[in-house]
Amino acid sequence: MEIIRVQTCSKNELIDITDQVQAAISEIGSQEGLVSVFIQHTTAGVTINENADPDVVRDILSDLARLIPENQSYYRHFEGNSASHLKASLVGISVTIPLVSGRMALGRWQGIYFCEFDGPRTRSVMVNIIPSEPLPRV
Amino acid sequence: MEIIRVQTCSKNELIDITDQVQAAISEIGSQEGLVSVFIQHTTAGVTINENADPDVVRDILSDLARLIPENQSYYRHFEGNSASHLKASLVGISVTIPLVSGRMALGRWQGIYFCEFDGPRTRSVMVNIIPSEPLPRV
Amino acid sequence: MEIIRVQTCSKNELIDITDQVQAAISEIGSQEGLVSVFIQHTTAGVTINENADPDVVRDILSDLARLIPENQSYYRHFEGNSASHLKASLVGISVTIPLVSGRMALGRWQGIYFCEFDGPRTRSVMVNIIPSEPLPRV
Repeated sequence: MEIIRVQTCSKNELIDITDQVQAAISEIGSQEGLVSVFIQHTTAGVTINENADPDVVRDILSDLARLIPENQSYYRHFEGNSASHLKASLVGISVTIPLVSGRMALGRWQGIYFCEFDGPRTRSVMVNIIPSEPLPRV
Repeated sequence: MEIIRVQTCSKNELIDITDQVQAAISEIGSQEGLVSVFIQHTTAGVTINENADPDVVRDILSDLARLIPENQSYYRHFEGNSASHLKASLVGISVTIPLVSGRMALGRWQGIYFCEFDGPRTRSVMVNIIPSEPLPRV
Repeated sequence: MEIIRVQTCSKNELIDITDQVQAAISEIGSQEGLVSVFIQHTTAGVTINENADPDVVRDILSDLARLIPENQSYYRHFEGNSASHLKASLVGISVTIPLVSGRMALGRWQGIYFCEFDGPRTRSVMVNIIPSEPLPRV
């Protein structure tokens, strides 16, 4: 397993971590299987979306803020970040990606984004590979 | 594979099943790999979120009810539970979690929640492990 | 790995691909493990939901259109399909399903849906299996 550190700078922010995930995969060295990108946080997420025009992730953040504003009169959680928790559960806190010939089988326009919903914070991302190639015998 | 039974008591409810999932993993006995928690239902979900303050999941349910009310004039599904179906697809019906040294690599504040969106019902949860350690040769 | 082609006919559309995914699995031939259904697109998704009454997926699409309308004054992405991108990240672009005795462990009412959010287009779906049975030794 490899760990990626991510320093976020805003309350809400999407950060492209594709290159760091691919570097972690190369470090592990597997060639075929399934890549798991998992975070141990409850106010952040991981998603895959367009990496070409930065306005895409900007619009995604604007829409999430419209759908799930920071404050609701019915919120009871004492930390005041319930909106961040719901965003995490809707976007999800992990993605799994096929691994083919040592590289993630991402589409041409796909990037992996760390989704900060309660920053700025120092975060970490776990990268694991479940290999599907024949394993050495025990 | 192990099956966990969950009895829900409300129409909408989040139930912490972390201990039951870990017990199922210990029963299976694998040490390294990926844990799949999957449900065979279409009006329920599985998510990972904060397990410390119960107001977090309460606020999540309140927000989901605001975003996706039970009734819409345009709903056509005869069972009247279309809101439950959408919640299931947005939250998701499975999670995958890295398995390290026989335990799920959950963060300190992370719990696995069964999300009932059309209860009360008797539900079941499937726990599978895809091992990444060397397997016995055939 | 197997690739499924999907021709969509509308801007927004859910298409049941369960039989095609099962056929791809049979082609691969594994019996036990985890099935990954992954798409390389950023304006489409994959979800599991009810396959009995077609009004369920119709109501899901109506609700998504209400929550995330096609146009917002704050959208900046020049292609004008930011709503499609957010739907993709909320629904998710992959599902993982336990494989038992060569078949997906789907519930009686569960179908796998390709979710077109920016059609009509010709799309593709990747089907991979991570086997959990003992593998041949190297």
